Formats: sequence, C-alpha cells, structure tokens
Amino acid sequence: MKFGVIGYGYWGPNIVRNLVNLEGSQVLAIAEISPQARARAQKAHPDVKVIASALEVITSPDIDAIAVVSPVWTHYELTKAALENGKHVFVEKPFTSTSAQGEELVNLAAQKNLKVMVDHTFLFTGAVKKIKQLVDDKALGNLYYYDSTRVNLGLFQHDCNVLWDLAPHDLSIMDYLLKGDPEAIVATGQGHLNGHEDVAFMTLYFPEKVIAHINVNWLSPVKVRTTLIGGEKRMLVWNDLEADEKLKVYDKGVKIGSKEGVYELLVSYRSGDMWAPQLEQGEALRNELSYFVDCVSTGEEPFNNGSAGLRVVRMLETASESLNKKGSLVYL
Amino acid sequence: MKFGVIGYGYWGPNIVRNLVNLEGSQVLAIAEISPQARARAQKAHPDVKVIASALEVITSPDIDAIAVVSPVWTHYELTKAALENGKHVFVEKPFTSTSAQGEELVNLAAQKNLKVMVDHTFLFTGAVKKIKQLVDDKALGNLYYYDSTRVNLGLFQHDCNVLWDLAPHDLSIMDYLLKGDPEAIVATGQGHLNGHEDVAFMTLYFPEKVIAHINVNWLSPVKVRTTLIGGEKRMLVWNDLEADEKLKVYDKGVKIGSKEGVYELLVSYRSGDMWAPQLEQGEALRNELSYFVDCVSTGEEPFNNGSAGLRVVRMLETASESLNKKGSLVYL
Amino acid sequence: MKFGVIGYGYWGPNIVRNLVNLEGSQVLAIAEISPQARARAQKAHPDVKVIASALEVITSPDIDAIAVVSPVWTHYELTKAALENGKHVFVEKPFTSTSAQGEELVNLAAQKNLKVMVDHTFLFTGAVKKIKQLVDDKALGNLYYYDSTRVNLGLFQHDCNVLWDLAPHDLSIMDYLLKGDPEAIVATGQGHLNGHEDVAFMTLYFPEKVIAHINVNWLSPVKVRTTLIGGEKRMLVWNDLEADEKLKVYDKGVKIGSKEGVYELLVSYRSGDMWAPQLEQGEALRNELSYFVDCVSTGEEPFNNGSAGLRVVRMLETASESLNKKGSLVYL
Amino acid sequence: MKFGVIGYGYWGPNIVRNLVNLEGSQVLAIAEISPQARARAQKAHPDVKVIASALEVITSPDIDAIAVVSPVWTHYELTKAALENGKHVFVEKPFTSTSAQGEELVNLAAQKNLKVMVDHTFLFTGAVKKIKQLVDDKALGNLYYYDSTRVNLGLFQHDCNVLWDLAPHDLSIMDYLLKGDPEAIVATGQGHLNGHEDVAFMTLYFPEKVIAHINVNWLSPVKVRTTLIGGEKRMLVWNDLEADEKLKVYDKGVKIGSKEGVYELLVSYRSGDMWAPQLEQGEALRNELSYFVDCVSTGEEPFNNGSAGLRVVRMLETASESLNKKGSLVYL
Repeated sequence: MKFGVIGYGYWGPNIVRNLVNLEGSQVLAIAEISPQARARAQKAHPDVKVIASALEVITSPDIDAIAVVSPVWTHYELTKAALENGKHVFVEKPFTSTSAQGEELVNLAAQKNLKVMVDHTFLFTGAVKKIKQLVDDKALGNLYYYDSTRVNLGLFQHDCNVLWDLAPHDLSIMDYLLKGDPEAIVATGQGHLNGHEDVAFMTLYFPEKVIAHINVNWLSPVKVRTTLIGGEKRMLVWNDLEADEKLKVYDKGVKIGSKEGVYELLVSYRSGDMWAPQLEQGEALRNELSYFVDCVSTGEEPFNNGSAGLRVVRMLETASESLNKKGSLVYL
Repeated sequence: MKFGVIGYGYWGPNIVRNLVNLEGSQVLAIAEISPQARARAQKAHPDVKVIASALEVITSPDIDAIAVVSPVWTHYELTKAALENGKHVFVEKPFTSTSAQGEELVNLAAQKNLKVMVDHTFLFTGAVKKIKQLVDDKALGNLYYYDSTRVNLGLFQHDCNVLWDLAPHDLSIMDYLLKGDPEAIVATGQGHLNGHEDVAFMTLYFPEKVIAHINVNWLSPVKVRTTLIGGEKRMLVWNDLEADEKLKVYDKGVKIGSKEGVYELLVSYRSGDMWAPQLEQGEALRNELSYFVDCVSTGEEPFNNGSAGLRVVRMLETASESLNKKGSLVYL
Repeated sequence: MKFGVIGYGYWGPNIVRNLVNLEGSQVLAIAEISPQARARAQKAHPDVKVIASALEVITSPDIDAIAVVSPVWTHYELTKAALENGKHVFVEKPFTSTSAQGEELVNLAAQKNLKVMVDHTFLFTGAVKKIKQLVDDKALGNLYYYDSTRVNLGLFQHDCNVLWDLAPHDLSIMDYLLKGDPEAIVATGQGHLNGHEDVAFMTLYFPEKVIAHINVNWLSPVKVRTTLIGGEKRMLVWNDLEADEKLKVYDKGVKIGSKEGVYELLVSYRSGDMWAPQLEQGEALRNELSYFVDCVSTGEEPFNNGSAGLRVVRMLETASESLNKKGSLVYL
Repeated sequence: MKFGVIGYGYWGPNIVRNLVNLEGSQVLAIAEISPQARARAQKAHPDVKVIASALEVITSPDIDAIAVVSPVWTHYELTKAALENGKHVFVEKPFTSTSAQGEELVNLAAQKNLKVMVDHTFLFTGAVKKIKQLVDDKALGNLYYYDSTRVNLGLFQHDCNVLWDLAPHDLSIMDYLLKGDPEAIVATGQGHLNGHEDVAFMTLYFPEKVIAHINVNWLSPVKVRTTLIGGEKRMLVWNDLEADEKLKVYDKGVKIGSKEGVYELLVSYRSGDMWAPQLEQGEALRNELSYFVDCVSTGEEPFNNGSAGLRVVRMLETASESLNKKGSLVYL
C-alpha cells in the first residue's frame, strides 16, 4: 500500500517512521509547508519525495492512501480532496472542526467505498485493550463512572482550547468502552492567558446512570494521566505514567441491601485483592497503522472509522456549547 | 472553660479527648442518644457526666460552651438552644442544613454577644496554614485555579449526598484562601445505590478568573486527597496522604508575551526547583479547640466563625440547586 | 491469666493496653523505675497496681505471667527470676544480650515446664503471615534471596548499635520463613556519632544457596521498610509503609536452559501479572498476646519461643563478631 | 575529528548516533563481527563504511580516534592496538578486565601523548553533576555514607557476574564524589543460575569514616535505581527512575552533643525542608562525547580518563577477591 503523508510537524515523523517500517506499506511522498520541516523529512527519509504541495500528493495516481497529519482546521478540506481523488484516509484526531464536516466526510467515504480511519491511538495501547476486554467480559459488572485526569504544564495551543486539545483521547476511549452515546454534557472552564480555556472540566451523562468526567489542564505543575473506572463488581485505576503496573484492578465493591423490617437501605463494602495484569507491549501507533492497512486490504470497516471520529467531534461541539454558557446542561 | 458535648459518635470522642487534655478547658457533661455510645463515653471518661438529654446539658448553669457534634440536621436546633441559654458554641461542619438557618444563628450569636465556631478542622493543619501563608505572601502570584480530588470507597451517608459529606472540607479551605465569594456554581453527579449522589463534580467561578473544582466520590477503589493550586508565579500540589512532603511547591510558570510585529500571542514556560517546606506538626483539632478557648476568653472573633460556616452552606445549597438540574449554572 | 508487666517506657503501654482489652487476660501490676512513667501508667490504668520494684511483681503469688518490656541488658535477669518464681514469660526482642544467657533461659523454662515467648511482633502481621503461606505453599518456588532495607532518621540508641536495634525484626522473619539456620554471616558498618555503628549491612548465607541481606541505617533522610524476596517461580516486594498493597507478588521468573549442541547456558525470562493479596487486618501485637495466652492455657509450644529468640541472638552475636573485624566471614 | 567505532551491539548505535550528530565529529568506519548487526549499522548509516575487521578500522590512516564499544575482554587488546596506531580512545566501562591491563594502557597513552576516556556516562547526567556540585560546595557537610541499590530482572551476562555488570556505574560515581580511594572492600553474593553471582553486596571503607555500599541484583522483580547519600549537614536521595524530581535534598541532620555534667552523649535531630533542584537536561552520552572531542582538541586531560577507569577496575578486582572468599575484608 502506497502512502502520501500530509504534514511533518510534531506527529508526522512518527506516522512516517511507522509506515516505512511496516510490512506491506510504503511512503511515496510527504507534503509539508514549512521548509525546515521539509529538510528534516528529506534528511530522515532520503528516498521519499518531499514537497510543499499537499494537492500534488493527494492527486498523485501512484498513491493509495493519504495520512492527514496537519492542523485540525485543515482536516476537512484535505480529507475531502483525498476521498474525491479515490484515496483511503488516515486522519489525526479530532476528525474535523465541526460535526457537519464530519458527517459530510462519512457520507462521502461511504459513497466512494473508501476507508477513513481516525487516529485514536490510545485504543491500540495494551492498557485500553485490556480495559475493553474487562468491560466486555463483564469483569467490572455494570459500570458506574469513568473519571479521567489529564493535566500537565503546556503545551498551549493557539487555535483551540484545552478541551479540544486533550479531551479527544478520553472521549474516544469512552466511546469505545461505554455503551451508547452520551445524552447530555456539561463543561466548565476558564482561560487565563491567551483567550482559550486552559483549565476545563467536562461531565457526560451516559445511559443507564453511567457518568463520565474529564479534567484537563494546561497549567498543572505536575503531569497526571489517571483514569478511574468504577463498576458494580470491580473497579480499576489506569495510571498511564507508570512504567509497569499501569493498570490496577481492584476486587472491591459496594452493595445495597435491606434488612427485613428496616426501611433504611444498607450499604455494604467488599474489599479483596488487587491485580495488575500484564499488558501487551508494542507501539500503539504501529498496531493502529497495521490495522489500517489490513482494513483497506480486507475491506473490513475499522472500529475507529469516520463515524467514531464524528461521535467524538459531536461531544466536543456539545461541550463547547456548554462551556460558552459557563456550564449549561446541553443535550446531544 | 467548662464544656458540654452533644454527640459521642464518630467524631465526638476526638473532641472530648482534646478538650480534656487542653489547658484551660474541662468537659462537664456529654449528651448522647445511643446507650452503647454512652457506655463507651462513660468508660473512657469516668469523671464526666454522661446522659441522654441534650437539653439538660445545654441548660446546665455550670457550662460555658457547647460542642455540637451531632448529625447536620440537628445543628440548627441545638446551636440555637445553646445560644439562647447563653453558651458559646463549637459546631461541626457543615454549619447548618440551610443558609436561612445559618443566617439566623449568626444574627442570634451577634445579638447575644456569644462566639460560634464551625469545625473547619483542615484550616488548622500545617499544610493549609503553609498554603495560606504562601498565598498571602504572594508567593504563588495571582491565582489561576484550585482543583481538589477527594475520593475513596465509602462511607455512604444515609442523610446526605457525597457533596454535603466531602465537599465542605474543600469549600472551607477555598473560602479561607481565595479572595471573595464564588459568583456562580455548576455541580454534576450521579447516584447509583441509595438515592443520594455518590459521585459528584463541582465547579466554582470566583472573581478575577479564579476557577475552583472539586471531585468527590464514594465509589473509588483508591483513596485520593490531592489538591492542585495554580498561580502566575508558582504552583503547588498538596497530597494529604503523604506521610512527609505533603506539600510541594513548584517554581514553574507560564507567561504570555508578544513579539513585535507578531499578532499571535506567545506562551513561554518557566521551570525551576521544587520545594517541600517542613510543615507544622501537631493535631489540627487540638489547635482549633485551643483557638476556640482563646477566642472566647479574649473576645476575638474566630475566622472560622458562623459567617464562615454560613458561606460554606451557601455554596453547598447553590451546588445542590445546580445538581438537581443536572448541572445548570447557578449564580449566588 | 494474670499478668505483671515490667517496664512502661516506649513499648510497655502497648503491651498493657492489649493485655487489658484481651479476653481472658488481666494486668495486676506494673513495675517501672521512672516516677514519670509510673504516673502515666497509673493515670491510664487506675485499677492496676503501679510500683517501682520489679521483684515485687515477679514474686507476687497472684500473678501467672510476666511481660518483660525493659531494656535488653535486663532481659536475662528478669526472665530468669520470673521463671524461678514459676511465671510464664513474654519478653521483648532481642531475647538476651548473649546466646549463653539465652541458652540458660531456654533450659530453665524447659526444666520448669514454663512458656517463654519472645516478642517477634512482625510474625503476627498480615503481611508476614501471607508471605509465610506463600513460601510454605511453594508459590514462590525455591527461594533465591531475602533482601531487606530498614532505614530512617534516628532513634539513636545509647546501649547498642543499629544492628542490634533494627535487625532483630528481619532476623526473626528470616528465621520464620527460611529453611535451616544461616551457615555464615558477614557484617560491615560504620559509626559516625556516638561510638556505635549507625549504618550497617549484613549478609547471611543460608543453606541451599539462599542469601539474605539486611541494610539498616539510623542516618537516612527517608524512612524505608522494604523487603524483596526472590524465588524460582515468583518474587515479591513487601513495602511495609504502604497503607494498602503492602505486599506485591510478581509472576516473574528466570530460567536456565541449554539448547542442544550449545554449550553456553541460556537464561530466559518470564514476566506475568502482579497481584497484591488482601492482608489480614488487626493489630499484630494483639494477635501475638492472644496466642501467648492460648499457648499457656493449652500447653502448646509457641513457634516464637525462647529457642527462636536464641537463634536470633546467635545471628546478632555472630554479626557483631564479623562487624568488629570490619566484615570477616564468621561461621555459626 | 574522525572516528572509527568498534562494536555495534547494544550500546554502539548510541555512540554512533551521537558522534554523527555532534558538531565537529564524524564517523568514518564501523567494525562489527555480527553480519546482522553490520546490516543494521549500514541501514541506519548508509554513508559510513561498515566492515568486519576491527584491525582495518584501527589502522586506517584517516581516523583520529577509536570508540571501543565491544565486550570487556576485548578492551585491552583493542585499546592497545589503537594507541599503538596513534589513535585517541573512547572505551566502554569497565575499562579493562584486570588492573595490570589498565595500568599498561594508562602508561602507553601517556607515553604516546594520546587521550583515553572511559565511558562513565553517569558522570555526565544532570543528577550526578548536581550532586558533585553539592558535595564540592560542602552543602552536605562531611559525608557519612553512600548507599546505592541497583536491581532489576536480568539481563544476565554470560561472561561476568552482577558486580562487574552493574557496580561500575556506582564505583565511577563514588570515585568522582568521594575523597580518596577506598581502603578496604568486602563483597558478598550468590549465584543461582549460570555460575556467576546474580545477587551481590559490596561495602567499601573510604577514608574519614565514609562507608559506601552497593546492592546489585539481576533477580529483582522490580527495577530500583536509588542512591542515598548522608552528610553531616544535609542528606539526599537520588532516584534515577523518577521522571521529574530525581534528586531530593533533605535539610535534615543529626548532631551529637553533651550536656554539662552529663556523661552520656546526646543525639539531637534536625529536620527541615526538602528541595528538589531542577537538573540539567540533555543526553549524558552526548555531553560526554562532546567533552571527549574537546579534550582531544584542547589537550585537556579528561577527569574520566584511563586512570579513573583503572581505579574502578581496581575496586572490582578487589571486590572479586573478597567475593571469592565469601566476604573477607580485602585491603587495596
């Protein structure tokens, strides 16, 4: 499979490196606007054509698929052009700037019978794969909540707030793990420096009383990447910054009962062992790109397709609406 | 100073033990409804009168001050009765169930020239004292945010939700540290077991773009007591579960600038040493009760007086209103 | 069972408190040389006779058993007197100052048909009980090593070095867990302040290539209580300072093999899940004292008897001999 | 400066990458015995000559300096040949297999007026640089001890024991930080699998009562890289596995005094703030290689020269002698 890559900034080099090393894929061309970044690309990959024009890459007849690794506001135009030129597309998260754009692209891909995959890299980590398995196997029982903290110092983005920058990770994971779409969203936050919110909090009401919460912050002195998931039978803590033991599953629970003749509900606690399952190693992005190549080859629809990307964009859009009203409840 | 103590459940024994050991204070009587708790009280304190009737204690002419250590819904009645009988009052948090009750008690105390102190114990810990000093000395610069996580497994309360149970700690600390009252509050949450919210999140908009956030949860497999405070000049992390180094002050910051001729704002990061100041040791409750005795003796108005308790109750009341609407913005 | 307690310094109050609360035991008298400590004892236990003379307690006809909670150099005399007066003895660790003393006491107790128990409290913690079970169940496979770090700032002892102060804990645990006695010991160390070694390291060669190591230090800025135990099949880390998850069992191992026709040995690694078993809660000292009362009643010989105490003293004595030679190998 | 590199196994690629990127240095040739490794080298560095023969590289007239990145037992022969061919040498640690070899190389380099640098990479990390500065500035006061734990699972070496594998790091750091050479060494250990010790402990007696200790282990379920350094005025903990705050300096101390008329020495404790200085970032190996290029250019003698490497080999040799006697005290 022959790839053209658009964008060689922060993430682009990782995409190119993985595509180059992957069995069955090849990078023919890289388009990048910055001359310095082009020079870096050419030095690292002397055999690849490195040019300024995205359009030239997109319209190249030798190319089967386009990886769009450019700023969010360009995703729609570039993906659309790629699809119109008959290319499959691997595109960075968040998928698009608006859900209208996302819908259009999803429809276009379906119509053209082309694959679109949105780069929700975390879904291909050992930790999220194991959590997905635990949830699907009912090891946690019915879920109660999903609570993620994703804070650090910087990097401030100039074209979006902290929610659009950091929350897509959690939203794509929630979308993967939790049943159904959120019914309503509340987002609060504050901007202190460049006009964009740098601290934000988001609550999502999912069906069946599942509540999700995301805490994102560009102004934290310490880096935190911790997610708590509570279920009826077990609970887990995922600390992505741990070198080992990223995932801890607690055999703990709370049960509600009632004694005969007693009207007050009784809450009882159960506490047992903790267990840190060994996680699959390997670079998530490599697994994801390999899956993309497979999906294109076999015709299988990727689970992180345009529709998945669109669902995340809808949550972000709804959160923005709530945030603009300082935290109103907004139904999806 | 002679004390009567109402309530000898979970917290009462600590109050009595400290009052007994304190220079200048004495416990004459304990009122407690449960016979088992009365037996425990009598065994631990053979010299103290232990009875069932709160009223008898409150009306006792020998007693100067009443410590109200009973459930929240009884605070108003008992404090009112104590004040009407000319007693100073030390009362558990939250002060009252409604702000109307709190206002009435504040007025009554003023009118009777009696002291009311609300047990905001955390304000007397070494960690909060040091943070207060750092804030007042402008060591953090202008504040950006206050973000607290206070989660653990249980104990479920039967008469209130997790916000009323756990958030008063953080609200009293915010009230102590931050300038002004919050202007608006958004609270979200979900109850899964006994009808009361067991997971809740609260955003408070304070003046001058200071945003505060509280994450409380009775369904967490792990106990967390961590607060982040971000300022223009420095930032800190207070982890109350650390045996040593509870407080870490980071010489880190973010600055906004603009290059000449450049319209885009530039964000620059500053990163320096971390510093864990040694904190004052000693039991916070002992310090607080000693301060109460002093305030009554000298006539000094305690900073954690009825008005402080009332401000916390107003925040809780507002949060409840928001929570009932699943997260509407409610102005105070 | 009626107890007399000799010594009410640092540890004595815990012994008395537990004996008082224990079903089937009673404290009749406390002997303590310091008037201040006697006053504290009397205040806390108004019903108990508190006197200066140990001999008076030891010879009291109403008393069944003596708890010796005084400095090490007094253990021999007091235990001997107690045994001669027909009393069972619960004595602090280390059992005696010399192995000759220990042997004499063990013989005397046997001859008088009295029980002696040495206070190796750690053997009654949930962590050590679970480790013992794992070792006995062969869950770890054949053991490779036992490595303990037990360091903190102070408390300097005036009558012994850091080995005699801190190592008895680890030595009694090793004695409990490992097969056989150590064959040889090497101890190194250095004293910097009061003439006694304040930093010391001890290696013990046990049978079947099991090696044990203890790192003790009164001059560490941080407190550490961590033990690693490596086995053929599994390995564990016991961190006694963790509030939860004190014990972590790793399904990890190393295997040696040889490929056909290859002379070089091949080492292969196995890495699996980590598991933190829930540990029995409850105060270790209470469990131990309850076991002492049971052993006296039923005639069962306690596993932490005088012989166990003597084995620990022998290791300390041997270590001292090695330490005096700056680290010579000394066979037991 | 033109380099030839001998060895492209585990560490060689890092050496080559850094030399290639460094201003003022160039890699002309790589010698490597394994065909697979040669293929990797050639793919990564298409412009560099990659051959099997070390001798051909060493004798190449275009080459100014040789980096010896091959197994320890080859260091002596290769370094000798390089020096004899007039090349400066950068050689992996440990410098040589015996001190006799090391002495010969030190003399040869002096005679030929060539530079030899031994790759004690840790001396070029931000952490060790800061510790060196603290020690030199007397911020810690007189030193009491240096205690390092360096354990993990594997990698078993086939040609040396765990001491020769892991201890050189600590020995080179001690050599850098502590005054004088050790006066005597005691080493204990045990081998369980392939005939080489896989668990070992080493005590070094330095002048002025400074005691050093190293705990190395290939059979630990967890990775630990922690060093404690205790001084009269301050103490520090260096945890190299921490992402941030690798170094913590404690304003704690112990003092010995004597009250008038009191014969017993009094020990008093001082406890103050903890401080985690920001450390210099950047790859240590890059800094070290840049320093090597500078030393060759300017003629400055590197502090991690052959003599430094020789001192470390002497300590290892002495430790081996002690270890062979199961822990005898061996004077240097």
